[in-house]
Amino acid sequence: MWFVERRKYVQEENYVYETLYTLANGRLSLRGVDEFSNYKMPGTYVAGIYDKHDAQVTELVNLPDPLGISIYVDGEPLLLDKSTIKSYMRALDMKNGTLNSSIVLELTNGKLIQLDSQRFVSRSNLNRFGIIYKITPLNFSGKIFIENYIDNTTYNGKLDPANKIQHYAVLKTGEMMPGLFSLVKTYDKGHLIAIRTALKGYDSKGENILRYRKYRLIGNNPSEIYTVFIREGETFTLEKYGAIVTSRHSSEPLKDADANVGIYFAEGVEEELKRHTEIVNKTWELMDIQIDGDETAQLGIRFNLFHLYQCASDDPTVSIGARGLHGEGYKGHVFWDTEIFMFPFFLYTLPKYAKNLLLYRYNTLPGARKNAHQNGFKGAQFPWESADDGTEVTPKWGEDYLGNPVRIWTGDEEYHINADIAVSLVHYHIVTSDDDFMRDYGVEMLLEIGRFWASRVEYNERNDRYEINRVIGPDEFHEHVNNNVYTNYLAKWNLLKSREYYYWLREKYPDKFEVLKYYLGLTDEEVESWKAIAEKIYIPKKEDELLIEQFEGYFQLEEHEITEWDENGLPKWPKTVDLTRLGETKLIKQPDVVMLMLVLPEEFTKEEMRVNYEYYEKRTMHKSSLSPSMYSIMGLKIGDTHNAYRYFLQTVLVDLEDNQGNTNNGFHAASAGGAWQCVVNGFGGMCLEKNGELNFEPWLPEHWKSLSFRINFKGVPLKVTVTKEKLCIETRVEMPVKVRGNRFDLRPGKNYFELVG
Amino acid sequence: MWFVERRKYVQEENYVYETLYTLANGRLSLRGVDEFSNYKMPGTYVAGIYDKHDAQVTELVNLPDPLGISIYVDGEPLLLDKSTIKSYMRALDMKNGTLNSSIVLELTNGKLIQLDSQRFVSRSNLNRFGIIYKITPLNFSGKIFIENYIDNTTYNGKLDPANKIQHYAVLKTGEMMPGLFSLVKTYDKGHLIAIRTALKGYDSKGENILRYRKYRLIGNNPSEIYTVFIREGETFTLEKYGAIVTSRHSSEPLKDADANVGIYFAEGVEEELKRHTEIVNKTWELMDIQIDGDETAQLGIRFNLFHLYQCASDDPTVSIGARGLHGEGYKGHVFWDTEIFMFPFFLYTLPKYAKNLLLYRYNTLPGARKNAHQNGFKGAQFPWESADDGTEVTPKWGEDYLGNPVRIWTGDEEYHINADIAVSLVHYHIVTSDDDFMRDYGVEMLLEIGRFWASRVEYNERNDRYEINRVIGPDEFHEHVNNNVYTNYLAKWNLLKSREYYYWLREKYPDKFEVLKYYLGLTDEEVESWKAIAEKIYIPKKEDELLIEQFEGYFQLEEHEITEWDENGLPKWPKTVDLTRLGETKLIKQPDVVMLMLVLPEEFTKEEMRVNYEYYEKRTMHKSSLSPSMYSIMGLKIGDTHNAYRYFLQTVLVDLEDNQGNTNNGFHAASAGGAWQCVVNGFGGMCLEKNGELNFEPWLPEHWKSLSFRINFKGVPLKVTVTKEKLCIETRVEMPVKVRGNRFDLRPGKNYFELVG
Repeated sequence: MWFVERRKYVQEENYVYETLYTLANGRLSLRGVDEFSNYKMPGTYVAGIYDKHDAQVTELVNLPDPLGISIYVDGEPLLLDKSTIKSYMRALDMKNGTLNSSIVLELTNGKLIQLDSQRFVSRSNLNRFGIIYKITPLNFSGKIFIENYIDNTTYNGKLDPANKIQHYAVLKTGEMMPGLFSLVKTYDKGHLIAIRTALKGYDSKGENILRYRKYRLIGNNPSEIYTVFIREGETFTLEKYGAIVTSRHSSEPLKDADANVGIYFAEGVEEELKRHTEIVNKTWELMDIQIDGDETAQLGIRFNLFHLYQCASDDPTVSIGARGLHGEGYKGHVFWDTEIFMFPFFLYTLPKYAKNLLLYRYNTLPGARKNAHQNGFKGAQFPWESADDGTEVTPKWGEDYLGNPVRIWTGDEEYHINADIAVSLVHYHIVTSDDDFMRDYGVEMLLEIGRFWASRVEYNERNDRYEINRVIGPDEFHEHVNNNVYTNYLAKWNLLKSREYYYWLREKYPDKFEVLKYYLGLTDEEVESWKAIAEKIYIPKKEDELLIEQFEGYFQLEEHEITEWDENGLPKWPKTVDLTRLGETKLIKQPDVVMLMLVLPEEFTKEEMRVNYEYYEKRTMHKSSLSPSMYSIMGLKIGDTHNAYRYFLQTVLVDLEDNQGNTNNGFHAASAGGAWQCVVNGFGGMCLEKNGELNFEPWLPEHWKSLSFRINFKGVPLKVTVTKEKLCIETRVEMPVKVRGNRFDLRPGKNYFELVG
Repeated sequence: MWFVERRKYVQEENYVYETLYTLANGRLSLRGVDEFSNYKMPGTYVAGIYDKHDAQVTELVNLPDPLGISIYVDGEPLLLDKSTIKSYMRALDMKNGTLNSSIVLELTNGKLIQLDSQRFVSRSNLNRFGIIYKITPLNFSGKIFIENYIDNTTYNGKLDPANKIQHYAVLKTGEMMPGLFSLVKTYDKGHLIAIRTALKGYDSKGENILRYRKYRLIGNNPSEIYTVFIREGETFTLEKYGAIVTSRHSSEPLKDADANVGIYFAEGVEEELKRHTEIVNKTWELMDIQIDGDETAQLGIRFNLFHLYQCASDDPTVSIGARGLHGEGYKGHVFWDTEIFMFPFFLYTLPKYAKNLLLYRYNTLPGARKNAHQNGFKGAQFPWESADDGTEVTPKWGEDYLGNPVRIWTGDEEYHINADIAVSLVHYHIVTSDDDFMRDYGVEMLLEIGRFWASRVEYNERNDRYEINRVIGPDEFHEHVNNNVYTNYLAKWNLLKSREYYYWLREKYPDKFEVLKYYLGLTDEEVESWKAIAEKIYIPKKEDELLIEQFEGYFQLEEHEITEWDENGLPKWPKTVDLTRLGETKLIKQPDVVMLMLVLPEEFTKEEMRVNYEYYEKRTMHKSSLSPSMYSIMGLKIGDTHNAYRYFLQTVLVDLEDNQGNTNNGFHAASAGGAWQCVVNGFGGMCLEKNGELNFEPWLPEHWKSLSFRINFKGVPLKVTVTKEKLCIETRVEMPVKVRGNRFDLRPGKNYFELVG
């Protein structure tokens, strides 16, 4: 189950498959457009290349499309949309990180041509991509034309035509030896992007077939056109060499792109492909999950892991947007999705990328400090939507379906992102024991966030408590609420943790501590005040009951019973609801209380979890793709297995089945992280306990024969295999773990635990 | 029969319909692309805007496409290629010169939208075009986006991808009040072209609906996007205003284009459309042909006349290319097609345009003199292919299907174009009695061409005769032939006519004569030598026989009998022929001898015509679209009616049925002229006698009830109506004519002649 296949070409499905077939290496991303289709939404993205120009907010820039190629037979370009498709097969090979296709087209004049191809975006050299075409005229010989070109007419907003915009100006285009180039510059930020491509072509004897060449500039697009003679039944090969170099990584992008392609062309594309494949194969050894007995789940989970990995970068100045590098949904912005949903996967399997995600926040601290300052707070306030510099980029206004302006409040009120980052920092430290990171970066962030919360809380003198009013929690149906429990609880926890790490640093790295304290202007007194505040932060909850109130006054809202579900098992709106007054009902988009208990499981008892899970599940509309996975995990935690598999499937197939209807806009990266958590924390039952140890309480769906996954805990790789009868944990070094709450010391090698009874 | 209809949308037919639906006013031409299709070959041409740049030869430039419009419903542009077409109707309204369409599309989500439109290229203001859209959402209300844009990515060579090329650079783009502009410049010749478009939109109450606008530059394309709210069942109107002004007609094209659209927008598109329609309607009163009893022929002949008229210009510096202004076939070059095939139509119906066609040659005399000089001749040698300045623009080399270079000799050897122009000049003078024209322009051309022939002929001492060796006649299967009869006969005639007009000028306008004589450095002696040469020009012909040999040695070539014909009645290649050695056979592309006899009918007897017609018809492959019409007319002349109608139909339907398979590349303008000649000279039997009088010998196909046509002879409009029984000639003034060789004096009013018996 390594292949995501497409066996039929239906134009309407192109945009979705382009997302599914995106190839990326954490820096460069190419949406999986079919070069031989007229219905495509090309997307070329480089992590960190954002621009605003005339757009509403800063957004990830859609760069020139380097994939341009046309093959003309009898003067007409080959097009899937025009020819008869005699056979069609495209497949994402996730094992090797390539996009393969094999197509036979019949032209209107009866000529048959076979087009096979393999595309990759290199993990070995992050500026490179390559495509190998194998082309065979099946029933004719003759002259054809092959055109290689760079499309400099791409733009952002293809799915949102009223806001379409091109973020770059073309500075220079031309031919090089070999091939073509474009040099473009983004309007506001002045990023330079050099695009270089070149073709190599040879027949079955290895003879060069690209002998007659013309260079042309058509519009702004540089193009080279070759006249080629081909013979019936003989396969010829075209190799496309490509490099994209930006001023984020080079002081001379065009020169470097040219040098890069020069070497690449000389070495041959196969060499680069081999290096790329080796890296991807090795990564699978660290992150793969195997599910025996469920092909759908097996393919689904690998799909999610593969695309998460494709977004992961060594670059500490970029993070992962809500839709990955796969499309323009949410404009490439980074949300809490990264820390809360995606981060655990990286933390437990590919921790170096987890570290980089946190470093991105560190590198955007100046922007976060600016936000706090501008909003009248202290410390650092991380933005609800983040792009390249940490300043708030949430749009202020949207439009309803009638074109009326609608104020978007999340950028003003969804403060919990700050605590979400703090949670990631603390978990990162526990799971990796990376003291250096906390010393150099982590503690500074925790302290600045602590300061923010201390300045944000409001003292209610009458009740002698601290409140946080006029906020939005994860459940965005309810705006301007007071004392949202997700926000308040995490703020409280966050203040205590920030104080704890203040003393941790003083104890462990006194020199660094003094420098940082001086730099931030902190005093012990200020930090001690955080404890006082935390203790008095109000958590809305019914007296003597386990049920937590999502926010103050929630229990007084209108009740609407969900009675119908769609074919995906997702709730339909109760007929009694007025959608313009959702805030006055108990219906929620996603469950704040359940989320809180999953983010800090060590803080709650199973009974509390059960009571709240049951109460809120009935009222959750799952209007966020992040919601089902949370119910799946929580269900398994409290022993309610009946919905767990269904919710898991919704999560793991959200893109493969496009069950939210917007996969065209990009990969649901948070949902993918949620799918990993479903498997590892849900079915694998892995939980990080308060004492910093792992506990396993696995449960497998009826038809699963076995589940195995790999994690990395405190630097030790563990392989966990679960069957109905046994749990096996393989380790290289001794390590304490719990199984169903009972403590064991793992020995090097395989450790078995009986699960029956 | 005024409508050329298309009732089914099939992508493969788009390029052909774009030619059929081209709208032009002699200056500006817009191919009939469907704005809502993805499969189109936009063509925007302005007569006289040629450029070479990196192309093989100077060619008519494909300018930016001003028709860009997108209507987005639910984020997707309306496209015929994607939506379900519930009803489809497009029609060229030839009576009014508009292109109309009425389409109902069903989107994938079931939304139905009706799009009606009417497009015109104004005959009233040659820089303007306009489109009126009427749009109705049939089953939905909501928000849509409307985008108006100028496409600056157009290029020449879409059907010849190896030679695709953009001839212009974009100097400037932007928004104006109202609308958009592009200013582009051709690379070599530096023509400036300003393109201006603007939209007006209003609902059924006349309220402006275009209220929310964004301007964007996407690639090089300026674009304005409107958010519009539409209501189920309510029709709204969009009016597109456009003007294209070039530096050929303005010293400040952009300023003038802007001013033009400003006035146009204020007046309203309906005003312009009214003025346009009136002019077209009036022109029909001069040129229409009515055929009662044959709808196919009726529609076909009007189609041909309409498109000829669309190419006709008041501008004396442009002529009509072989494919009109309708496509890029023959690169917009002007051939003998204009003088020999198209010219008679204009001469007899719209003589002011005939005069302009000749003035184009006069204005390119400097180039023709340069050609003669460069080739070592005297006088003026008009080019086989002519563009903007009269220098030879025939490509020197082509490519065979294997990519081997093939030398093209027509530009070197097809001299007869010079005599063809001379024939037109003389006929123009006879038919119009326009002495002023001959005085100021005509005689100068005749003298310069006479000089050319006198310097080109070769004296053969042994036979004491003048020869013209190494030439190509109209039959291009045979290159480098000696003493081609079409060339030699016309050269001889031409030398005598040139001499005749020399004395005519001396007689009639002695002052002008002296100036011209001095200017050209002519002497009576030189002119008298032309007579001596003419008398000794060798005409290959069997002694004592009527059969003329096409060129010296033709009768010795291999005989190959044509035994099979295709479904259009066109001959198939005899199986015995080696296509690479056609020159060694008697097979011909088109009949030089028959052509000659049609060009100068007064020079030959009916018996000569019959003998040669019968001989050459058996050997003609009709590989020129000009060929069948000539056989049709000649057949009727000699009383062989059995093929006349079939050949006529092939001619008149060459584009409507795309029976040459290349209508995508433009309108067959020469064939259209041939169709007019078939009707008037063939079925109408009109012939200009040696004495300058008209003779009529009509013959109608069995199923034709009547035929009527209008001509203008010596400034007098005549209406000729033919039935099986009678010929009727309507005139305003007295005039002598012949009917079946018998002389009559027409009286004002209707004059009837019995045809029966």
